[in-house]
Amino acid sequence: MSILVVGSVAFDNVKTPTGGGTDLLGGSATHFAIAASFFSQVRLVAVVGEDFEDRHVAPFRERRVDLAGLQRVAGRTFRWAGEYGDDPNDRRTLDTQLNVFADFQPRIPEGWARSPVVFLANIDPELQWHVIEQVDAPAIVAADTMNFWIDSKRAGLLRTLSRVRILFVNDSELRDLTGRRNIVQAVDAVRAMGPQVVVVKRGEHGVIVFQPQGTFAVPAYPVREVVDPTGAGDSFAGGFLGYVASRLHAGPPDYRRAAVVGSVMASFQVEAFSLDRVRTLTPGEIAERYRGFRDLTCFDDLDPDALLGAAAP
Amino acid sequence: MSILVVGSVAFDNVKTPTGGGTDLLGGSATHFAIAASFFSQVRLVAVVGEDFEDRHVAPFRERRVDLAGLQRVAGRTFRWAGEYGDDPNDRRTLDTQLNVFADFQPRIPEGWARSPVVFLANIDPELQWHVIEQVDAPAIVAADTMNFWIDSKRAGLLRTLSRVRILFVNDSELRDLTGRRNIVQAVDAVRAMGPQVVVVKRGEHGVIVFQPQGTFAVPAYPVREVVDPTGAGDSFAGGFLGYVASRLHAGPPDYRRAAVVGSVMASFQVEAFSLDRVRTLTPGEIAERYRGFRDLTCFDDLDPDALLGAAAP
Repeated sequence: MSILVVGSVAFDNVKTPTGGGTDLLGGSATHFAIAASFFSQVRLVAVVGEDFEDRHVAPFRERRVDLAGLQRVAGRTFRWAGEYGDDPNDRRTLDTQLNVFADFQPRIPEGWARSPVVFLANIDPELQWHVIEQVDAPAIVAADTMNFWIDSKRAGLLRTLSRVRILFVNDSELRDLTGRRNIVQAVDAVRAMGPQVVVVKRGEHGVIVFQPQGTFAVPAYPVREVVDPTGAGDSFAGGFLGYVASRLHAGPPDYRRAAVVGSVMASFQVEAFSLDRVRTLTPGEIAERYRGFRDLTCFDDLDPDALLGAAAP
Repeated sequence: MSILVVGSVAFDNVKTPTGGGTDLLGGSATHFAIAASFFSQVRLVAVVGEDFEDRHVAPFRERRVDLAGLQRVAGRTFRWAGEYGDDPNDRRTLDTQLNVFADFQPRIPEGWARSPVVFLANIDPELQWHVIEQVDAPAIVAADTMNFWIDSKRAGLLRTLSRVRILFVNDSELRDLTGRRNIVQAVDAVRAMGPQVVVVKRGEHGVIVFQPQGTFAVPAYPVREVVDPTGAGDSFAGGFLGYVASRLHAGPPDYRRAAVVGSVMASFQVEAFSLDRVRTLTPGEIAERYRGFRDLTCFDDLDPDALLGAAAP
């Protein structure tokens, strides 16, 4: 099934403890689209400025992402600058220039209104709602958000969430959204808002997927060198939803695989800046790392004679 | 095989967001011994004061922990008081009274010198070394430590580590010990100090076990209410090492199971204060939660047709 994604396409300036880069192609919709494209057909809705050149289009074309929903308007593309500390989860935004994104109104191209799977990347909940209204009864609506929207546009976010089936959040967003510190209790609270599948992203500590049919946890892949954490969350969501959309009737076991696929894509994403690693990815490499996750997490049944107490009175 | 554990037996005053307790039986050796006792014979080396009464001995006796190495001396037992915030990893020590522990010299009873498995709980590295010197070529020495010793007794700790095979650490200790933030690089540095199996405990984010034969990660069990996190790390180590000691020639797959068994014991430990939950544990409950960890972490192979790109040029 096709996935429609709405989000940002951006140029990033990134500083890390070991390096950095400027004018790197990034943005939530970019990272999501490229990761998802390995599993499903992707339709991208976003806006860029006059500084968005042919060479920036190339990675999308290579991955056959449909750009019919990419508006090109007068002005400069959205720009973000940030810096990471030794802890990859410790990110500081240095500069944000909305530019053409300030007046972004997502327009769904003709023929895309019936997209069966929709991903609302982390943008203003009012824009997310605007997209929901333009789409005709999608089978799955998934969404990401951030503390900024939870705090400043709560009512709009709750309206969006009432139509969302899969929500991607991190621990701090989950706490902000629900007022609960305990993850199990927080997920109960989110379910009352709409989303029945809650995917909690914990960066280097992995992911937990709460489904009504059971909970699934997968650790992050221990990477020897995190070159740039930018885009890891969106790559995860792209792998996850790309995989789900590729199954005709995705059931609970597929959502488990989807969480591993997402983790695979995120683990590649952090190995290089921008799209440098994922652009050259092969299906074989993806399948190999998936097996790596099995090696990382597999264990045998408990041997029946393991428990001393079994023989005790 | 028998496990000799040396560490603290203590009385704790604990405050949590939802409750608390005073004069709770605790201490690293206590929590380790009770958890390990479900899988192996445990020999306890520690010191208590005159305030340690018969009712405090009962839980050890119930679990058949051998107390021949428990010294009872004049004075008061070690006391610790602490408080937890909403985040179970956020612990504040309010008071520490070493009492009889200040002059503790571990004495290994006759006949225990040949203990095949030794656990050095988190105590002064000089005492840990003193124990190593009294034990005759154990098959496995395992140890725990803390930032305080890493910072204040580094030379002594390195001497101890040169004889340790399995080290239990958390992320912050690993960083302090090695100066490395990346977990893979930090583990390489620890291996150069001695320990070949490095078990990184991440609290509510689970555990990663680095073995020379491969890395294994297991998430923490999502618990709806953490009543008291005290002792979780020692219960984990007790389950882990108790299980390893129960296997005659424990290989890499046994260490994976051991990490799950440790996680099982820790998940029970946090459900109540002191020994209130683990004291009543049955082998059936342990086996059931072990299966719960399989449900939490299991996923299928990637279906061969999952990758779109496989068909792409």
